[in-house]
Amino acid sequence: MRDTRAMASTPADVKELPSAYDFVLDIPGLNYDDIKVQIEDENLLVITGERRRDDEKDKEDGKYLRIERWMGKFMRKFTLPDNVNLEVISAVCRDGVLTITVEKLTLPEQKKAKTIEVKIA
Amino acid sequence: MRDTRAMASTPADVKELPSAYDFVLDIPGLNYDDIKVQIEDENLLVITGERRRDDEKDKEDGKYLRIERWMGKFMRKFTLPDNVNLEVISAVCRDGVLTITVEKLTLPEQKKAKTIEVKIA
Repeated sequence: MRDTRAMASTPADVKELPSAYDFVLDIPGLNYDDIKVQIEDENLLVITGERRRDDEKDKEDGKYLRIERWMGKFMRKFTLPDNVNLEVISAVCRDGVLTITVEKLTLPEQKKAKTIEVKIA
Repeated sequence: MRDTRAMASTPADVKELPSAYDFVLDIPGLNYDDIKVQIEDENLLVITGERRRDDEKDKEDGKYLRIERWMGKFMRKFTLPDNVNLEVISAVCRDGVLTITVEKLTLPEQKKAKTIEVKIA
C-alpha cells in the first residue's frame, strides 16, 4: 500500500481486518469539521486538514514560553488495494484519533470485478 | 521554567497568561482516566500517562500493515515558577489535547509569601 506524503505529515497506522482496512491517524486538537477525506484517481485515499493553535486566550495578552506542538496543514495519501468497496467508507474522530474504515468487497463482487472477458476473434 | 523529560515524551506548549499558566499537551487517543497530573517536591508539575493501541478489533484477526503511531508510557515534568497557587489547578482534556491551568497567586498573597521577617538580635 503506497503512501505518498506531501506537506507536513501526521502519524498513521494501517490495519487489515478480514472485512475492511482501518487507517488510524493522530490528529489531536482537530474537530471533524477541520478534516477532509477524499478518494482521488479511483484508488487514492487522501486525508487533509489543518491544525491551528487555540489562541482565544491571546486576547488576554498571553505569551508562549514554550512551543513544541506542531501546527499547520497536513496531508496523507494511501493507495488503496483493488479489493475495496469505495461505496462503504466511514470516518470516526474520537479523542484526537481519526479512524477511516474502508470495507473490502465481498467475494462474489470481487470475483465479478476481476472477470476478464476474452473475445475470440 | 525547567522541563525534565523522562521515558517517552509528548509535545507541549507552555503559555503565560496574566492570571495563569497553561500547559498544553498533545495526547491523542487518551482518556482523562489514563492521565495522572501531580505536584511533586512543592513546585514540580508531573504529567504521566500511557497510550495503548486500541486492539479490540484484533479479536477479528486484524494485522498491521503500517505502524507509525507511538504507544507506551510518557512523562513530562515542569518546574513551576514561584508565583503560582497550587490550590487552583485545573485539567481539561478535549479532542486529544490536555490543558492544565495553574493559577497565579493574586498580588496580596504573593507579596505576603515573599515577606522576610528580619529579627533584631
